[in-house]
This record gives sequence, structure tokens and C-alpha cells, in this order.
Amino acid sequence: MNIVTVRSLSDKAARFVPKSGVYPKGFSVGGIHCGVKKDGKSLDLALLRNDYEQPAVASAVFTKNKFKAAPVQVSRSIVEEKNGKNINSLIINSGNANAVTGLQGMNDAWKMVQLTDTTLKNDPKSTLVMSTGVIGNRLPITSILDGIPKLAGDLGSTHEHWIKCAQAICTTDTFPKLVSKEFVIDGKAYRLAGLAKGAGMICPNMATLLGFFVTDAPVSSSALKNVLTYATNRSFNSISVDGDMSTNDTIVAIANGAAGGKLIEDTEGDKDFLKLRDEVTSFAQQLAQLVVRDGEGATKFITLKIRNALSFEDAHKIASSIANSALFKTAMYGKDANWGRILCAIGYSDVSSEDSIIPSKVSVSFVPTDGSSKLKLLVNGEPEEVDEERASQILSAEDLVIDIDLGTTGTHESVFWTCDFSHEYVTINGDYRS
Amino acid sequence: MNIVTVRSLSDKAARFVPKSGVYPKGFSVGGIHCGVKKDGKSLDLALLRNDYEQPAVASAVFTKNKFKAAPVQVSRSIVEEKNGKNINSLIINSGNANAVTGLQGMNDAWKMVQLTDTTLKNDPKSTLVMSTGVIGNRLPITSILDGIPKLAGDLGSTHEHWIKCAQAICTTDTFPKLVSKEFVIDGKAYRLAGLAKGAGMICPNMATLLGFFVTDAPVSSSALKNVLTYATNRSFNSISVDGDMSTNDTIVAIANGAAGGKLIEDTEGDKDFLKLRDEVTSFAQQLAQLVVRDGEGATKFITLKIRNALSFEDAHKIASSIANSALFKTAMYGKDANWGRILCAIGYSDVSSEDSIIPSKVSVSFVPTDGSSKLKLLVNGEPEEVDEERASQILSAEDLVIDIDLGTTGTHESVFWTCDFSHEYVTINGDYRS
Repeated sequence: MNIVTVRSLSDKAARFVPKSGVYPKGFSVGGIHCGVKKDGKSLDLALLRNDYEQPAVASAVFTKNKFKAAPVQVSRSIVEEKNGKNINSLIINSGNANAVTGLQGMNDAWKMVQLTDTTLKNDPKSTLVMSTGVIGNRLPITSILDGIPKLAGDLGSTHEHWIKCAQAICTTDTFPKLVSKEFVIDGKAYRLAGLAKGAGMICPNMATLLGFFVTDAPVSSSALKNVLTYATNRSFNSISVDGDMSTNDTIVAIANGAAGGKLIEDTEGDKDFLKLRDEVTSFAQQLAQLVVRDGEGATKFITLKIRNALSFEDAHKIASSIANSALFKTAMYGKDANWGRILCAIGYSDVSSEDSIIPSKVSVSFVPTDGSSKLKLLVNGEPEEVDEERASQILSAEDLVIDIDLGTTGTHESVFWTCDFSHEYVTINGDYRS
Repeated sequence: MNIVTVRSLSDKAARFVPKSGVYPKGFSVGGIHCGVKKDGKSLDLALLRNDYEQPAVASAVFTKNKFKAAPVQVSRSIVEEKNGKNINSLIINSGNANAVTGLQGMNDAWKMVQLTDTTLKNDPKSTLVMSTGVIGNRLPITSILDGIPKLAGDLGSTHEHWIKCAQAICTTDTFPKLVSKEFVIDGKAYRLAGLAKGAGMICPNMATLLGFFVTDAPVSSSALKNVLTYATNRSFNSISVDGDMSTNDTIVAIANGAAGGKLIEDTEGDKDFLKLRDEVTSFAQQLAQLVVRDGEGATKFITLKIRNALSFEDAHKIASSIANSALFKTAMYGKDANWGRILCAIGYSDVSSEDSIIPSKVSVSFVPTDGSSKLKLLVNGEPEEVDEERASQILSAEDLVIDIDLGTTGTHESVFWTCDFSHEYVTINGDYRS
């Protein structure tokens, strides 16, 4: 078996952290160390500001966990109160989740919003707040409040500023997750930038602990909300690291319209709207996949394709059941073609009806990502004679696609991304607070 | 952090394997190596026979997994066809689960039943069959069929025979799980013996891969069914090792009446019936706890008490959500009092209503099992100042009780047993087939 080495982790940074980017107009960002993280140097406070003359619009999706962290409660109330309008900055700390911190925690989260608003000369309640890290400890609020004006004086829009901002929201992440792209709608160029932090506690229903996208396209607040929901269901809600759903999960989208052009609205069948929705969705998938790549201790990147299901919900539940099976994930880590565990997890998934899974119709294959031919494991419920050498060859690659054809009368499908479960995962999470 | 050592595993065997037992009258058992396990010596075939002049009655509960292994399908059809009556033997192999093996697998399972019946001179379909081990490989059926007559000639009722039988159903178990006791109903003594194999893939809804109880009390088949369901819900359905539900899970109860006495029937409020039900339930809990003690790589034994819930179902779901959280389990392994992860798992459990969990009413404590005072972590949703030294002292013990008072208007409770997630778990499961 293969223990993750420091070398392979920095390999990932080299492969997945961009050397440059193309960033939306009218946003400044930055990150500093303010004193939340105990090592005295890691970046732990991030800020984003809308510099454009027009106020920005924002939308957000939050964790469904009953114990919602203070920043989740505060940000949600701001988005709701302002109906997503005139929201111009984001303040984020890492190293402490400000979750289950009682009334003090709520006060601390509000202080972060208020000081950011006054420092940036915003209208009141124009800032959303996020926190990530250990649950149940009070924020070192003085360090954070001291840091905010300092950070506000240090914002910029270079690639290095974006990288710092991405670094400042990391916890156990081994590399900062930043993507950017330019896209064209109706002949006009717009830009998207996205940041995420992930690593552990990533599960199907609200995944990345924290993530945000910003664009310089002009979008109505209602259209932005619609786009965010659609994209999140097909990206951050279709990944899993360990199946836990955090108290802090938040994804925010902000649009400032700084690139000009015609306002994009969500009128039925509008081509510009559909183009934006698809651009944001593929962008969100790219960012969500980085979270899986950097799953705590992950050595494998596994794509699950569930096809010919009775419904999208069935396909999604089956994918999620496999992706969260500790036995499946440890087998992948051990490069063991133990496909029985895949079937086992299919078999106990919480599908809607007796016809959702008919064992004698199910087929499973490993699909290598190097273009070589696929390996059939099960065809219509009957096991194939598996060439173990070929299986172990396929499993020695980092990437793997597992194709599951349910063979029902339906034609729905779900694509889901997950990683393996390693010794390193146990080490990281057995020792997280110390 | 503490890696499980071979020494600590054999410690468990010394502590949990009985040196003697008091076994039900009229049963013979045994175990041999027939050739399923590749090492050429580990016991892999177990047999139990009712020797009493009257036929025995049996009841069974099976996995809800859609991919039911061939032996599960065969045993279920026998119990249903015979309504639990005239079932006189059990044949069990370990090392191969005979699951997802198509039509050949069904034929193999039937062959095991038929040969056992003819060898023991039973009526047809008087034997239940179980298999445990790797999924998706065909049984080495010739070895098994050669082994059955040999094993039938080697049965007995001594403690050593029972130990061999328990050993022969093990896979990754580090010790055989055998319990026995004598109990009294209405002045008459009866005996219970129980065996289980567990280790991995143990989850709330049908836990132990394989288990059975036998008694020499005279019980009607309907009463036995009733007792088994009640006891299983409070024992094997209230434990978790890794949250996976296997294709093979089966628990069987057999009663032969060899001790004599009045037939126990499940007439409403019958005292003898209630006494039997409670005796079997506490017995099943004892056996189920051994499965958790021997969870793959487990270094901790954790009892979750969920109190003051709106319903038993709510309490049970919350317990199950905590017990299956990889983040909680790795924190326990790391002896980290990261109670935030407990709350997190409470918060995403699938409870019935908005009032099932009210964050401001929830209290959590660690209760040491050495009688020293408990440590409050959260009181009515507000975190306590935790004495980390005391917390780490409590967590250094093998056993821990976590008390969770939901503080709702209800008074229901659920007790659940689980273990931690260790490096050893990953090693065992990354490498299971090789």
C-alpha cells in the first residue's frame, strides 16, 4: 500500500494551483495573517471588496446542519433582509469556525460585518461573513478586528492578491483552490473567479465548507440566485470526501456588472441566461473537483457515473451511497478491485422504489482515463472473470471512472466525484485540534 | 497517537473469550478447516445440529441490502416455506460470502443445504445456510461439500466444540464471539448460547454479518420470531462499526425445547414470554457489544446515550449519525475532545421535525466509566470552559459514555454502541482480498 508522501502533496499544488489568471473587473482581494492560526504566520483572514461604482448583487446557499455557525446565521439574515442587493464585500477567517459559540459567537460575527462595512465605507449590512476551522472555541475577535483595517489597506487585483486570498481561507487544505476564466455571452467577454476551501467534512448535501464566485457580468439578483442553485446541485452537492456536513458550509456568488453590457435576467428560455448558467455550472464543477482532489489524505480521484436510473434522485442517492462507503474508499486506497463493495453500497442506498435497483440488470465497469479499454466487472448482475492484473494496472492510476449502468427503464444519470480513505486521513483527523 | 498493536488485540481475546460456558441441551456443534480460507489451516466451516428428539423451531432476520447473497435468499425461502418449524441445523462457511455470484451461487447454497440435510438424516429443507467473506467470487464448493460429512462426524457439545464453531465463522475478527448463560423462567432453568462474527461492515440496520442464538427452552415459532425482532432492534440494530450494510447479514434464533417445561407462547402480557424476551435482549446486547469491541482496528468502545428525545426513532437516528461520522470516529481514535464534531453529526441527522433538535436545549457530557465525575462540554447549547487535561484523561481510557440530553419535551431515549476509526481499519480494509 501507498502512504501519501509530502512529495505527492506538493505535486498536487504544482499541478492544480494556477500560475496566472484572468480576473473579473472591479474586485479587490487580499489575505493576511491576523492571529487566528497558532503558528503565527499562516494566512487566516481574507477580504473581497467590490470597487465598481454600482453596488453588487449576491446570492448564497448555506448548510442544512441544525447547528448553524454564527457567521452562517448572520450572512443568511443579511442576504434575506437585502434580497441579495447592495452586498459589496466578504470577510472570511480560517482557523476557527465560530460555531456552537452561543451568543458571544453571534456578537463576534456581527462585529466582523460592522467593522468591515465601516472600514470600507459601505452601507450597513453590505458584508457577508464566513468562518472555518475548529468548532466550539470562541473567536480571537480582537486579533480579527485589528486585522480588518490592516487587510483593507492591502487589497489589490493581481494574481498574487487572489492567491493570498485563496490561501487565507484554507485549513487542512494542501493547496489553495482558485480558478478563473473568461467567457463570452452574445459577443461580449466576461470573467469569473472562484475560490474554495475544502479538505474534510465534504458531503453530498452542501459540500465545500466555504466557496465563492465573483463575476463582472451584469446579472439580476434573481437570475444570480437561480444560477447558483442550479450550479451548486451539479457541483458542490455532487462531491464527497467523508460524508460529514459541516456547521459552516456556505457558497456565495457576487456579480458587480463592471464589464458592462445588457443585464442578464432569468426570463424563461433566455439564451444569455442559459449560457451564463452553463458557464457557471462547469466552472463550479471545476472548483468542486479541486476540493475532491485535495480531500484530506486523498490519493485517488474517482468519478462515479450512474446511468439509466429511474430518476436523477435515485442516481444521485446511489452515487452518494458509494462515495460515502468507508469500505469502498479504503479498497480504492488499497488499489483493490473489490467491486463487491460497490455493489454492496448500491444495494443499501436509499432509493425510491423496488424497481430502482434490479440486481439482475446492473452492470459495472472500470473506465481508465488514459484511453485504454474499459474493464467489465459485472454484466447484468453476473460477475465477469476479472483479469486482476489489468484491474490493478487501472487502479494504479490516480484517476478512475466507475461506470454503473442500472439498466432500468429510465434514462436519468448523475455524475459524482469522490476520493479514497487513507492512513493520512486518519492521522489528520485524529489530531486536528492539537 | 496510538497505533493498535498485536499485543492489544490478543489482550482483547484474553478479556472477551470465555474459558468455559453453560450450553443449551440437545445441540451439537463444531468447526473445521475445509479449504475456503487460503492459509490451509484456519477454521472455515461450522455446523450446528439439533440432537433432541423433537424438531426445533427457528426464526431469522436478514439484510435489507438489495444485493442479497445466495445463502440469504436460500435461508429466507426455507424459513418462509416452513413457517419456522422443523429447522434443525445450520451450515456456515467463512472466507467467501457467496454474494453476487449469480445462478451458480444459488446452486451452491442449495447444495450446502441438501448435503447437510442428507448427511444429518434431516427432512429436506431443514438446514439454514450462511456465508461470510469476500463478495463476488464463486464458492470453492467441492471443498465445502467434502468438508460437510467430515464435520458432521466431528460434532460435540463441549466448550471446545463451541469455541471451534465460533472460530469457524470468523473473517477479520481478532477473537471468536461466544456467550452463554443460564436463566430461570417460572422456577425452571434454561440455557442460551450465542455466536457472532462481525468486525467490519457493521451498521445500524442489521449489524453483525452473522449471528445465531440457540436455547433449550420450549418456545412457539411465533413467540421466537417476536423475541428475535425485539432483541435485534435493541442490540444488533443499535451498533455501528463503519456504517456499511452487508449483502449477507443474518441473525438466526433456534429453540429445541430439550430442557422440557411449558411451551412459551406470545400471548399478550404473558409473564414467561416477557421474561424470555428480556433475557434474550440483554444476551443479544452482550453479543452485539463484542462485535463493536472487535470492530476492525477499533481501540475504543463508545456508548452513546441519547436522552429526552421526541421519539425513539429520533434518538436512534441521532445516535446512528454520530456513530457513523468518520470525523467523530477519527477524533475518538486521536483522543481528541473535539465535541464540535458530535454536535455537527447531531445537526445533520435525519430527524423527523423542526422540534426534534433545538440547538439551545442540547447538552453534552463525557461520562467516564471508572466512576469519576462527568465532564460537561455543552450546556443548553452554550459551550463550557473545558478542562482539556481532564478531557484527555477521560479519553485515554478504552471505554467512554457520551451523554446527550436533547432537552425536548419528549422523554424517549436510545443507547447505541460504536468504536473509533483507526489507521489499522484502513490497513485491514485497503488490503482485505490479498
